[in-house]
Amino acid sequence: MRNFKIILQYEGTRYQGWQRQVSTDNTIQGRLETLLTKMTGQAVQVHGAGRTDAGVHAMGQCANFHLETGMSCREILGYMNRYLPEDIGVISVEEMPERFHSRLNAVGKTYLYRVWNTEIPTVFDRRYVYICPAALDEQAMRRAADDLTGTHDFSAFTSARKSKKVARSMVRTIDTIEIKRVGKELQFIYKGDGFLYHMVRILTGTLLETGTGEKKPEDIKTIMDRGMREEAGMLVPAKGLTLVEVRYNDRSFYESKGKW
Amino acid sequence: MRNFKIILQYEGTRYQGWQRQVSTDNTIQGRLETLLTKMTGQAVQVHGAGRTDAGVHAMGQCANFHLETGMSCREILGYMNRYLPEDIGVISVEEMPERFHSRLNAVGKTYLYRVWNTEIPTVFDRRYVYICPAALDEQAMRRAADDLTGTHDFSAFTSARKSKKVARSMVRTIDTIEIKRVGKELQFIYKGDGFLYHMVRILTGTLLETGTGEKKPEDIKTIMDRGMREEAGMLVPAKGLTLVEVRYNDRSFYESKGKW
Repeated sequence: MRNFKIILQYEGTRYQGWQRQVSTDNTIQGRLETLLTKMTGQAVQVHGAGRTDAGVHAMGQCANFHLETGMSCREILGYMNRYLPEDIGVISVEEMPERFHSRLNAVGKTYLYRVWNTEIPTVFDRRYVYICPAALDEQAMRRAADDLTGTHDFSAFTSARKSKKVARSMVRTIDTIEIKRVGKELQFIYKGDGFLYHMVRILTGTLLETGTGEKKPEDIKTIMDRGMREEAGMLVPAKGLTLVEVRYNDRSFYESKGKW
Repeated sequence: MRNFKIILQYEGTRYQGWQRQVSTDNTIQGRLETLLTKMTGQAVQVHGAGRTDAGVHAMGQCANFHLETGMSCREILGYMNRYLPEDIGVISVEEMPERFHSRLNAVGKTYLYRVWNTEIPTVFDRRYVYICPAALDEQAMRRAADDLTGTHDFSAFTSARKSKKVARSMVRTIDTIEIKRVGKELQFIYKGDGFLYHMVRILTGTLLETGTGEKKPEDIKTIMDRGMREEAGMLVPAKGLTLVEVRYNDRSFYESKGKW
């Protein structure tokens, strides 16, 4: 069995997210698996690095799958892009050692949340931004972002619920949160080792509420310590969120066997 | 009657172009006129600076209309953006002297044609680019662009047909043609006093055919002199074309009476 890593883009608007669903499947994973099964006649399981939610976009999602095939990386890329819908695109196909796993071996991810910060519409980017015309105090947001950066228990900033049966760690490390103004747009760029369910959207909601003055930067530490979801900010819409990149360690260890 | 100038954006994908049609109207002009009539109860005629074709986009289309209204520019902007579909957006509303006319007073326009120059898909910009993965000789295209720049009879580069009844001039001035590489994208930026029917798309088709070697840069002058449409390049698709800006002379002459 050969192991292929793909990097892909998608516009999440039309989809129920990454993860395959049992009934009425309209997911990215489902589309890819159906296509690869058609291509090879084999049952194929596609592992994604990030399980993006319904409506979330990806510029650099990473996935891998095992196949028995004589096709080259270039041929797989060509086949997939010929048959995938226009809102899903494969950027590269690379053959990897058999042990490579896109999710388990990922060491970091970058997410971008785009806020369109004016009442004037933005026609061309309307599907990729959240519209929030309120005046925002960028300094206050940056102070709050500083307190969110680092290794913390992010229980307050996720919709994932603690379970008594399965001990799931809510501890994650955020390396950086960059808040960047690009004209009328405000970009929130998160780099970290991994993110909990809804975490980037709740962090962004919390930062925006700090920007409007609803929350104070000095409240962040308390919210984090108390770990109560209802004390953090709102869950902002999926359409503003994009998975930009998935990072892997030590490329020599996962050395490529060919790429297109 | 007050005279309002608006700057607007639209994604042309769903529309039959700018200019109102008699039956089954689905045009930008038609949408605007219907909306303004609803807003004021008056029959309103909207004059656009550029009559963009079906599928062509605009980042800075300019239009004007006369209204009897007590509404402020800000109120008109708010009303229009509340009721227009998401793929049409009004960027600004400005009250002008009564003699201002968006088309007749325009002295220059900028058009952008975007070519996605690789087989690898571009999901987020797919509606705004023409995909042409062929290897392109940029130097040859620049030489051809030099010969297209200036004041010429562009009969070879338009789908507009000469009429014996109406003497229409095919002479236009192109100030600059910029060919810009932005990653995997090639942008053709045209600035000129005005453009004939299909002219930007045929110029781009001709430049692309020069890039692939199908045409030679030194052929351009002959094609221009002979004025035969069939000797110029192909008409490239509307989706790659965007009206970027409309320019007016001497702002003091058309001094604004208020803007939002």
